[in-house]
Amino acid sequence: MELYGERGFDQTTVAQIAERAELTERTFFRHFADKREVLFAGSGQLQDLLVQTVTDAPASAAPIDAVAAGIEAIGALLQESRGRAFARQRQSIVAASAELRERELNKMSSLAGALAGTLGERGVGEPAASLLAEIGIAVFRISFERWVSESRERDLRELMRESLGEVRSLTPEASRVPAAGGAPVRHAA
Amino acid sequence: MELYGERGFDQTTVAQIAERAELTERTFFRHFADKREVLFAGSGQLQDLLVQTVTDAPASAAPIDAVAAGIEAIGALLQESRGRAFARQRQSIVAASAELRERELNKMSSLAGALAGTLGERGVGEPAASLLAEIGIAVFRISFERWVSESRERDLRELMRESLGEVRSLTPEASRVPAAGGAPVRHAA
Repeated sequence: MELYGERGFDQTTVAQIAERAELTERTFFRHFADKREVLFAGSGQLQDLLVQTVTDAPASAAPIDAVAAGIEAIGALLQESRGRAFARQRQSIVAASAELRERELNKMSSLAGALAGTLGERGVGEPAASLLAEIGIAVFRISFERWVSESRERDLRELMRESLGEVRSLTPEASRVPAAGGAPVRHAA
Repeated sequence: MELYGERGFDQTTVAQIAERAELTERTFFRHFADKREVLFAGSGQLQDLLVQTVTDAPASAAPIDAVAAGIEAIGALLQESRGRAFARQRQSIVAASAELRERELNKMSSLAGALAGTLGERGVGEPAASLLAEIGIAVFRISFERWVSESRERDLRELMRESLGEVRSLTPEASRVPAAGGAPVRHAA
């Protein structure tokens, strides 16, 4: 990642990465399918942790609470293992390349797919499981972007809870109270 | 699209497409940036309609209702202009190619970005605008997939309303009622 930061993603070759890491190109390709994958190392581990946390949530937990536990667990891992300085550098490299942004969208789509499958195993039907998975991943991604870009560092899990609270209040259950101008209230004579 | 259906996307060349459409390759590239874009013709028009509909929603409409109006408008356009047989054929071509699935994710991400910007102009702050835009596009995409894949053809707007109803009930506003075991209710003596 150092090299991508120094030279830009497009200008960096696999040969240069292998040299910096003291590997042969052949060893490089044993670990990564292509040059892009270097920036997504660890995404399999994130997905496993997400799936495991949602699976382990108590059977009585509402689906949205199981999802919240899952994304908070991966947020905590990102925050505690590699930290914000790393995430910021990586984010600026990804943002600068159309190819990398595409790969990132792909990874998010895989996370959402795995999450939907896990919700299905918890008994959530379709399309509910897919919808909730997309919401969970959107909350994760948007909170992560805020965490990385805001000048003051905040707790990533706190940002996720805040965003999830926004989602809850932005999608109120359809009101069953008749709107003003509806059937007039009958007064007893 | 006929050719992609007959030969598969990977096996079809721009020269063959141009020949079938009675165009030169040069004219093809005046209309499409690459071979993939053929399958996303009309996506700019969809985005314009989405933005315009959300912009035109009454100022008094809740953000979620403005989003609902926007995605229903593009659903109606897809259903009425090219219909389900076309959508099914296109979907099976996209699903069979990793490159096309990636481009599709990109287009959905652009739609969500445009929708978030429009919500911002309606006075919705961040991260609410981005979250709601992602939810709207997830509802659109998942409803579209159901519309295409279910054996019985249903109304696409009805599917969207159903999914939006699911989202509303899956994300209940955090209850402010103390949970069982919380502070006991005081009874008047």
